[in-house]
Amino acid sequence: MSTDRTAAEELDRTDELAYLRDRFALPDDVIYLDGNSLGPLPKTTPGRLAEVIEREWGENLIRSWNDAGWWTASNRAAARLAPLLGARAEEIMVADSTSVNLFKLLMIAARLRPGRPVIVVERHAFPTDVYIARSVAELCGGELRLIDGPAGLESALDECVAVVCLSQVDFRTGAMWPAEETTARVHATGALMLWDLCHSAGALDVRLDAWEADLAVGCGYKYLNGGPGAPAFCYVAEKLHKNVRTPLPGWHGHANPFAMSPDYEPAEGIGQLANGTPPMLSLLAFEDALGAITDVPADALRRKGIALTSLFIDLIDERCPSLAVASPREAAQRGSQVSLRSDYAYGLVAALIERGVIGDFRAPDIARFGFPPAYLRFVDVWDAVQVIVDTLTSGDHRAERFAVRPTVT
Amino acid sequence: MSTDRTAAEELDRTDELAYLRDRFALPDDVIYLDGNSLGPLPKTTPGRLAEVIEREWGENLIRSWNDAGWWTASNRAAARLAPLLGARAEEIMVADSTSVNLFKLLMIAARLRPGRPVIVVERHAFPTDVYIARSVAELCGGELRLIDGPAGLESALDECVAVVCLSQVDFRTGAMWPAEETTARVHATGALMLWDLCHSAGALDVRLDAWEADLAVGCGYKYLNGGPGAPAFCYVAEKLHKNVRTPLPGWHGHANPFAMSPDYEPAEGIGQLANGTPPMLSLLAFEDALGAITDVPADALRRKGIALTSLFIDLIDERCPSLAVASPREAAQRGSQVSLRSDYAYGLVAALIERGVIGDFRAPDIARFGFPPAYLRFVDVWDAVQVIVDTLTSGDHRAERFAVRPTVT
Repeated sequence: MSTDRTAAEELDRTDELAYLRDRFALPDDVIYLDGNSLGPLPKTTPGRLAEVIEREWGENLIRSWNDAGWWTASNRAAARLAPLLGARAEEIMVADSTSVNLFKLLMIAARLRPGRPVIVVERHAFPTDVYIARSVAELCGGELRLIDGPAGLESALDECVAVVCLSQVDFRTGAMWPAEETTARVHATGALMLWDLCHSAGALDVRLDAWEADLAVGCGYKYLNGGPGAPAFCYVAEKLHKNVRTPLPGWHGHANPFAMSPDYEPAEGIGQLANGTPPMLSLLAFEDALGAITDVPADALRRKGIALTSLFIDLIDERCPSLAVASPREAAQRGSQVSLRSDYAYGLVAALIERGVIGDFRAPDIARFGFPPAYLRFVDVWDAVQVIVDTLTSGDHRAERFAVRPTVT
Repeated sequence: MSTDRTAAEELDRTDELAYLRDRFALPDDVIYLDGNSLGPLPKTTPGRLAEVIEREWGENLIRSWNDAGWWTASNRAAARLAPLLGARAEEIMVADSTSVNLFKLLMIAARLRPGRPVIVVERHAFPTDVYIARSVAELCGGELRLIDGPAGLESALDECVAVVCLSQVDFRTGAMWPAEETTARVHATGALMLWDLCHSAGALDVRLDAWEADLAVGCGYKYLNGGPGAPAFCYVAEKLHKNVRTPLPGWHGHANPFAMSPDYEPAEGIGQLANGTPPMLSLLAFEDALGAITDVPADALRRKGIALTSLFIDLIDERCPSLAVASPREAAQRGSQVSLRSDYAYGLVAALIERGVIGDFRAPDIARFGFPPAYLRFVDVWDAVQVIVDTLTSGDHRAERFAVRPTVT
């Protein structure tokens, strides 16, 4: 790999997804390597939201539930998500937060596997996954098994396990589970497989149906660019629909909501996974934002993500030998992010943000950089590494002002 | 009561809250009597949301979690809600939907009263309340008791009851429970009192602390005008804080979210009632919208609501004798709505909407009209009744085109 910037320029010239960048409103003075925490603003979204707020809410008021199609917004968002998840729209519900969706699905899984009291989750999964799984296990009189990595999974699997919940991509290191093989291995023991796709959807070639996954959750505001705190999604494979029973039955998930009956009759299929009235401004923003990538083949996104992260790793190896690459070097085992490990990780991230290169810090020693394939250029990667080199040379990452870590997101 | 419109004009001239109407963007061609289903747009909200979307999300991206105060938006919304609920900000959490909040609070109540397996809910409560209560009862190995009215409550109360969940205002009829006396009666049996304030908050003189209520939920998009599907709120009295344990522990409710620890340590007080990342566009719209009424004394809102509904009932009695008033005639027993009962209720509401008077239909025979005190004028009441008179005279409410009821909200 050459350190020459022209090589990166050449990669941009031949990038089959280069046209996508123009769909996003990216500030000129920033190289944004944190789209895996909050995706940027799609250019169409401000206009759409202004229409929603001023015309649909302001002028048409309650009539917009029917006239503006608010009632079916969640279904439309699911239809836009479906190709990015390798699933059918009828298997996807856009609603609530990832936490709440995880609660619903883990409880559903426990009910689908009576007599199997164990839920398996990674010890170092995003913490909500562990907290929610522990709560569900307790409510069901079951047990939580925390595992570390593939060897941990292997020894945790037995006939007591109802469901295994794994993050396809580790939020700290970017390490990836082989989804299809892992699903098959879990199924061989009779357990259900639940994938947390928070760091997958919109960047990876997710193929839930082909993997024969049972359940999945994911968030809307990272690689899907749905806006801060966008509604999350969940997936329930069609094969399970007839036996699903949600622990959160609400009127939006009723077969006939306006009958207003005290008896709950679940809507067909994925429909019962709705419950309360969704936050429409956030949901309609998410629906709109999905338009920026719903037409892009997931495998093309994945190919570019691999090329971006590979270039970054090569340049770091070559130009920043003091930084340890904490993400897998094998592209097939890595999500669309690269994490660097350093005792000065917090100071490095803070100093880079001052210079317009936005990544994020994850305790205790991870500097995390996301490489969203939809809008990141290869020259951005090259320029970001140049700024990292300059920062390390300046010593700013060790500066006194970064000694105390404030709350960071 | 005179049928003369000048009497209504005179009431507007002396209305102490008349100045509030200018805070809302109300369409000229509509008399909006459905603010109890979806409140109108506060005039400041489009500008605020444009700033959130274009500057905070679009330009500042992830940095807005700290720099724009996204992380504390829920607390700020709670502080604006507090005076309207007669509670302290530290007792209120703005998050999730009413359904999800109800699930959290009923589960918390069941845990606070071990050995008391029964949850009491009204049979004709808003259906979500019944569905969620039944689900919680099942998960706790408990039992749901459905009651009808005060006599039903009296006979349902015994030492097995953990919690009583009542809607302060019935969504169909507008009938009100006497909140303070009912709370005391429930407490006398050792049970907890949970108020559903969906049709109260922002219109009634809610005094949760003074009532000594234990728990409450409510929605943000009715009399609070927070926008379609705005986040809901829940209330947990401070006296219970030290023993509360949420069934939905998420990272936003952790004492130290960025420690990212697999061990859940609940945030202090109401904090643990947060769970996942909230839908920020909807939450920030709600926070802004609350500015339109947070400075208005709740008792003044209530006084005007009584005056509006009383005028409507008097005019209906006088001018529309074919319509039966289904709401209590005693103002103290009535929320800020009036429901009329008619075999032609659906056709009446539909025909009125065609004429610009927006109310709503609730199956099987209720035409429901909300009288939000913040922006409704007395002349609106007079004019609406005139349109009802005209509609009844025309016979349009019996028209063929209204024979089949589509989905309505």
